[in-house]
Amino acid sequence: MADTRSTALAFAAENRAQFRSKLEELIAIPSISTDPEYHHAIERAAGWLADELRRLGATSVEILPTAGKPIVWGEIPAGAAATLDKNSPTILVYGHYDVQPVDPVELWHSEPFVATERDGALYARGASDMKGQVMATLSALDAIRSAGPLPVNVRFLLEGEEEIGSPSLQKSIDQYADRFAADLCLNPDTGMIAPDLPTITYGLRGLAYFEVRLRGPAHDLHSGIFGGAVENPAHALCDLIAGLHDENGRVTLPGFYERVRELTAEERDELARLPMDDEFYLKQTGAPRLYGENGYTVTERIGARPTLEINGIVSGFTGKGAKTVLPSTAMAKISTRLVPDQDPGEVRDMLSAYFDAFVPPTMTHEIEVISLGPPLITERDNRGNRALAAALEAVWGSKPMFKREGGSVPVSTYLERQLGVPSVLTGFGLPDDNLHAPNEKLDLPTWYRGIDALIHFFYNVAAQW
Amino acid sequence: MADTRSTALAFAAENRAQFRSKLEELIAIPSISTDPEYHHAIERAAGWLADELRRLGATSVEILPTAGKPIVWGEIPAGAAATLDKNSPTILVYGHYDVQPVDPVELWHSEPFVATERDGALYARGASDMKGQVMATLSALDAIRSAGPLPVNVRFLLEGEEEIGSPSLQKSIDQYADRFAADLCLNPDTGMIAPDLPTITYGLRGLAYFEVRLRGPAHDLHSGIFGGAVENPAHALCDLIAGLHDENGRVTLPGFYERVRELTAEERDELARLPMDDEFYLKQTGAPRLYGENGYTVTERIGARPTLEINGIVSGFTGKGAKTVLPSTAMAKISTRLVPDQDPGEVRDMLSAYFDAFVPPTMTHEIEVISLGPPLITERDNRGNRALAAALEAVWGSKPMFKREGGSVPVSTYLERQLGVPSVLTGFGLPDDNLHAPNEKLDLPTWYRGIDALIHFFYNVAAQW
Repeated sequence: MADTRSTALAFAAENRAQFRSKLEELIAIPSISTDPEYHHAIERAAGWLADELRRLGATSVEILPTAGKPIVWGEIPAGAAATLDKNSPTILVYGHYDVQPVDPVELWHSEPFVATERDGALYARGASDMKGQVMATLSALDAIRSAGPLPVNVRFLLEGEEEIGSPSLQKSIDQYADRFAADLCLNPDTGMIAPDLPTITYGLRGLAYFEVRLRGPAHDLHSGIFGGAVENPAHALCDLIAGLHDENGRVTLPGFYERVRELTAEERDELARLPMDDEFYLKQTGAPRLYGENGYTVTERIGARPTLEINGIVSGFTGKGAKTVLPSTAMAKISTRLVPDQDPGEVRDMLSAYFDAFVPPTMTHEIEVISLGPPLITERDNRGNRALAAALEAVWGSKPMFKREGGSVPVSTYLERQLGVPSVLTGFGLPDDNLHAPNEKLDLPTWYRGIDALIHFFYNVAAQW
Repeated sequence: MADTRSTALAFAAENRAQFRSKLEELIAIPSISTDPEYHHAIERAAGWLADELRRLGATSVEILPTAGKPIVWGEIPAGAAATLDKNSPTILVYGHYDVQPVDPVELWHSEPFVATERDGALYARGASDMKGQVMATLSALDAIRSAGPLPVNVRFLLEGEEEIGSPSLQKSIDQYADRFAADLCLNPDTGMIAPDLPTITYGLRGLAYFEVRLRGPAHDLHSGIFGGAVENPAHALCDLIAGLHDENGRVTLPGFYERVRELTAEERDELARLPMDDEFYLKQTGAPRLYGENGYTVTERIGARPTLEINGIVSGFTGKGAKTVLPSTAMAKISTRLVPDQDPGEVRDMLSAYFDAFVPPTMTHEIEVISLGPPLITERDNRGNRALAAALEAVWGSKPMFKREGGSVPVSTYLERQLGVPSVLTGFGLPDDNLHAPNEKLDLPTWYRGIDALIHFFYNVAAQW
């Protein structure tokens, strides 16, 4: 095995330009999932990936229809067999090929869908989240293939709606359960703490995302002629949003913290060792000062405590200059990040009860549920994490950090709960990659190391199983 | 004089189609003052009006440059003289030729700048506010001219930035003081209570309009990866806005009500006689329920009490679906309607002090002053109002209503304070004209009556002076 591993690593070292050029091809497809106008790009990206899996030797490839965006599925049996080798472990490679929107597009320094190198990084929407991570995995498999048959069975679950909360994934995992059966899932959709600190994520927050709309008058009114007659929906929405937090930064919804698993003293000690202090977050965010729930460090607040954020709000006239309108409607996007053992359905009910109780009688309201993703904690010492830890150490020369992350990866929860497939969560993005924001980037040296680490990972799983 | 008056009224009755067609020409020029892209239309509208004044026999016409949009000025001496007749009263006709923006344009049922008749009304931006009122006045003068020389001197002050708060008007009135000297100003920019209730407005609210911007993180952040680390500017702005009113609907800014002239028992009795009760405002606004400062009727709240409204708010992602962004900025347009004897400059200082005191240290803020228009009360029984009351009664057959209005007409305050010219405030728009909103309209039968009433007004001033 050592021979083939060395051959694969040598192939990877020699073919970086080729790997990168493939990534740039995928980046060029503007597969924004939240906007129906880009649906054709979603389909093109799925087709492109299906072709790639075939090129890598997949014996079966399918573009699975779902209630939403299609899933690209495929499998490559171990040992160049025609079907899955029952004596080898099976790794389900997860990825998503959809990306966030690019607005405000005027803040980008280069075209969002033209990968552009600056200072050793590749700038583009999806470069880090997560086309770069998907292509790191496919590149690692390409390198392994160059050295011989795969040492493990590999299957793929590449979805197209992660950025909109994976609304149809839970059902699709049930519907296609046979195709996703595996010993573990490799999910490279979480990030690193710093370029020299390879990271394994063992805790993830859930995401419950809502859109709340208030309607007062039947139409926009002149604020002079009618100001004083009716309540302004923008005021009311601000009042309601203000009431969602208390003066200590805690969410006020009754019962919101009831199921939150409190951190143990041991875990707090470990999290305190992560090299992410206030200074780190001040630099990453550029905020004048940090803020959050009293009584917790910033690492704890992000990784182990739930939050509620306004992702967007709009009402009335927002253009240049003055328009003396008293708006008829107001809308806010409100999402909560949930930690074990909070239940997104319960949080939906709490939010719903809050608005039912406190929206004033001068207006009507509705709440649209956009996504309900549960939180997750994995075992830190399972076989997958051990194989990954050794792989990361082989490349970086130091043991990886174990981290609880603030983001959400609903698929890992679904695979665990519905199919009993545990996830191994890692990734080679960095905290300053501008995910979901203008000028997203991918650090190329880190990405190349990531490909090497994934090569090790596949061999390690085969060796240790 | 009776003969010429009858001749003029007959001319008006015969030339309605011609008057309307002129109005449609002016409407077709999209003279939106708040958007620099439409500046060419502002210039075209000014040129068009200058031509109209010449056609009506103005001996001098000028397009006066200002720091902002130009003022169309002209004069028509009484008695067909070459210069102003010192023995005749001089009426300064005020109007504005600029209009509000048309967004959201998708809610219009016909093109905003193509006057379209439905159910006896003309639908278009500016039809009521106030191209219709300007053209009613010019049509009245056209009719009077057809019957002989004008019985009074007429001057014109037609501005192009009323809809953005007349930012350069105060200076222009000083700069061109000689050209605007007059015995009274006819300002038809206020409305009627109902089609059968001609109305004279004797009180107007002032308008102080601001844009507040908060900035927290240096750029938009991922709400999972950073949620819990920083304070959300959208939350903070909502908190700040929520704090601007108390639970009784009163503005909390210290000193805000200090200079408010309280209504006398007599004035409250009179305002109570206006046929605008809760039912009326429920119908006009389509709101489920009315709302406002405790202790005042809706007519009092609109006409005689100050208000503070959010005219617009925006932060983060407001498109379709989900984007898990923690926004870096939040913006609100905040305006106050002021009553005598509040001072807009003092209100600016109060708002400024409020944000200085309460914007959290996690972010920075700035306040842009967009306009500072003072409130106004005129004498109800001056000569101009007497002439107007008789004119309205001659056409409608009933005495006009005297009203305090919620809107703002800064020019009347400036003319009174700077030149000692009192204003006569009326107009032929109706409460359901959708001013500043989609599907603005002008009721044509009311407009034709308005033209007749203005014919009477000019003759009445000449007769009663």
